[in-house]
Amino acid sequence: MRELTVELGERSYPIYIGEGLLKEASSYFLKHGISTKSPLMIITDSHVAGLHLQALESELAGAGFKTVSAVVPSGESSKSLSMLESLVTKALQEGLDRKSTIVALGGGVVGDLAGYVAASYMRGIKFVQVPTTILAHDSSVGGKVAVNHPLAKNIIGAFHQPEMVLYDLHLLQTLPPREVKAGLSEVVKHGLIWDETFVDWCEEHAEKLLALDPDALGYALYKGCSVKAAVVSQDERENDLRAILNLGHTIGHALEAVAGYNELLHGEAISIGMIGSAKLGLRYGAPEEVYTVTKRVLAACGLPVRLPEHFDVDAVMEAMMHDKKFTEGTMVFVVPTAIGKVEIKPDVQVAWVREIVEQLKQEGGQR
Amino acid sequence: MRELTVELGERSYPIYIGEGLLKEASSYFLKHGISTKSPLMIITDSHVAGLHLQALESELAGAGFKTVSAVVPSGESSKSLSMLESLVTKALQEGLDRKSTIVALGGGVVGDLAGYVAASYMRGIKFVQVPTTILAHDSSVGGKVAVNHPLAKNIIGAFHQPEMVLYDLHLLQTLPPREVKAGLSEVVKHGLIWDETFVDWCEEHAEKLLALDPDALGYALYKGCSVKAAVVSQDERENDLRAILNLGHTIGHALEAVAGYNELLHGEAISIGMIGSAKLGLRYGAPEEVYTVTKRVLAACGLPVRLPEHFDVDAVMEAMMHDKKFTEGTMVFVVPTAIGKVEIKPDVQVAWVREIVEQLKQEGGQR
Ligand SMILES: NC(=O)c1ccc[n+]([C@@H]2O[C@H](COP(=O)([O-])OP(=O)(O)OC[C@H]3O[C@@H](n4cnc5c(N)ncnc54)[C@H](O)[C@@H]3O)[C@@H](O)[C@H]2O)c1
Ligand SMILES: NC(=O)c1ccc[n+]([C@@H]2O[C@H](COP(=O)([O-])OP(=O)(O)OC[C@H]3O[C@@H](n4cnc5c(N)ncnc54)[C@H](O)[C@@H]3O)[C@@H](O)[C@H]2O)c1
Ligand SMILES: [Zn+2]
Ligand SMILES: [Zn+2]
Repeated sequence: MRELTVELGERSYPIYIGEGLLKEASSYFLKHGISTKSPLMIITDSHVAGLHLQALESELAGAGFKTVSAVVPSGESSKSLSMLESLVTKALQEGLDRKSTIVALGGGVVGDLAGYVAASYMRGIKFVQVPTTILAHDSSVGGKVAVNHPLAKNIIGAFHQPEMVLYDLHLLQTLPPREVKAGLSEVVKHGLIWDETFVDWCEEHAEKLLALDPDALGYALYKGCSVKAAVVSQDERENDLRAILNLGHTIGHALEAVAGYNELLHGEAISIGMIGSAKLGLRYGAPEEVYTVTKRVLAACGLPVRLPEHFDVDAVMEAMMHDKKFTEGTMVFVVPTAIGKVEIKPDVQVAWVREIVEQLKQEGGQR
Repeated sequence: MRELTVELGERSYPIYIGEGLLKEASSYFLKHGISTKSPLMIITDSHVAGLHLQALESELAGAGFKTVSAVVPSGESSKSLSMLESLVTKALQEGLDRKSTIVALGGGVVGDLAGYVAASYMRGIKFVQVPTTILAHDSSVGGKVAVNHPLAKNIIGAFHQPEMVLYDLHLLQTLPPREVKAGLSEVVKHGLIWDETFVDWCEEHAEKLLALDPDALGYALYKGCSVKAAVVSQDERENDLRAILNLGHTIGHALEAVAGYNELLHGEAISIGMIGSAKLGLRYGAPEEVYTVTKRVLAACGLPVRLPEHFDVDAVMEAMMHDKKFTEGTMVFVVPTAIGKVEIKPDVQVAWVREIVEQLKQEGGQR
């Protein structure tokens, strides 16, 4: 079992990563002061409910916790204000009070939604995360919780830190392969912004990671969480440093928007975005390996590194302009200067970005 | 001009109270770092918009602020998730960003709603209160913001402290007399829980207060805010001390619920509730004056001290049981032990409470 602490003063909390932690969930819950008197509500999605909900319910019930479960449809569309309202209805009907806890059992969607319920219900109650995707290692650090608005993603939310995160590697064994790859994209990102050795490690262990080998997976999640925790501890409320976490996201978000949030998973979109950022790095004089290593490690993880031909470059550029404000033909970008090191460049030429997006279609990578 | 600081560490903020502050709003805004570059959104209600919105808009626009205004229907029903969603739509359409500010121009309804928009939009942006009711002195301290759920009031919310509160006494001159009285109820409450001298002062100055005499009003709001600030500073997140602010509210909330939130204003309901609490105080050995003074000061402020005959005592008791959990025939109550002093009694007999509610119909007060 690995453990790390997200250091945020009095809001610090631990992340436990290991095999079979779910079977010991109640002792972790008790250790962290989760009430056995007030009902706790497990929020999960329709996929995960069928796979892992009962195990968590009976583990907790066996130790005397009063559990209530709420299952939302799987997918991004559950991150909505109307889902918040239904979950609050349920919480009220089941008698959740100020001492109650909300438990998120699922990926980033469930984590963000359940976290926002916990942040808002009675102006804030306790929150525990039991992540079931690789991508959720990212959302388990930093306390960002939110729902979407028809006009913008994650625009209605809060900062609400969990009491703890219980990452049971067994739960990830049921993840569809495409979700595995997409999750690894953010793992690799954490290497690329912070830790060259870890990037090399990811490339070497890519096959094991894709096979969900518990040892490799545990280490990768531990490292991914650690990098994000280091960044967030220095900058809880997203000012300067925290921006480096957006490596690959400016292009990535634009691709997701243009694809209508269907064709590309988030992790896939930012994989292509990170290739774009690496190319941008070259323009700023980064060594060639910034590009070659970035491409190799992402490809090794089974991630797309080429922009599918049919994407309209104009549409991508327009989506990007809409996403990030830009002045006088320049944009702000997170740019790698070496493997494991990035800088915020405030003056990237829009013309360069367009060229790079065009070139992304010519990449010789897989997919 | 009077000024006080709500002491909350790095979230401390000032409350300015005075005549004509609106005319100088822009200098206060500049002093507190409100951006002139990012658009700011004034949220107000349909009554207040007709009376005071233009003055605020032109004062701010004159100093170069980019203002956008959103007018919601006056009344409690605007405190809803669907109103949050519409206001976020507007904020997005008008280009509000992380550096933008939400300004609440109105009473407690607008303050709570706008504050929750500010707490949630992009996970929290700046918030300024420009209160226009007496009751809003209460909501301007403590950072509680919320909307209602069909099943429960104020159940979806956050703690979000404003940058500052600008209380212009001129704006209150247009308040309907019934709202004036209802607002004074919470002012008197702040005296009853904390400051005997201030209770006496309220009784002596009741006529001036009802006439909205600026000197008297300014002092009353200053004292009311100060008491609440003292309580909240010691207990930001509502644990023990903050509970004393609920004097009169257990019975008061039950009366509001039974009356269907129509017949009685909140301030009127808690006025009757405070009479009930005073009677309870007598059972715990408080001196007779706890009851007589409470009744005198509330009556002097034109507030009801008698429960209208048609209220069904069973229904009131049931609403109270629903509101506060109770075990084995006892309830928790805030009980006055002297004028300016209250205690939390965890073991109040339900039978006593019922007797007192019945007696409240016999009070010889006005209305
Ligand atoms: N809060 C943050 O800091 C943060 C950071 C990154 C991403 N996010 C958010 O996370 C979300 C994406 O997260 P995600 O990729 O985990 O999406 P997700 O939660 O939708 O999970 C992906 C899919 O996998 C399924 N699934 C989850 N666990 C499974 C399991 N163990 N076995 C089988 N199927 C399983 C889900 O039902 C879903 O269909 C986005 O909404 C994004 O905005 C938030
Ligand atoms: N956040 C807190 O700590 C806290 C504390 C107490 C009350 N509250 C909330 O405050 C709300 C009640 O506040 P309220 O009594 O101010 O209600 P309100 O905002 O509805 O105002 C009362 C009425 O007066 C009108 N009005 C307001 N200012 C006016 C003016 N200057 N001239 C003419 N008309 C004016 C309004 O349009 C409304 O019709 C409730 O929703 C309650 O939950 C919150
Ligand atoms: Zn991401
Ligand atoms: Zn009140």
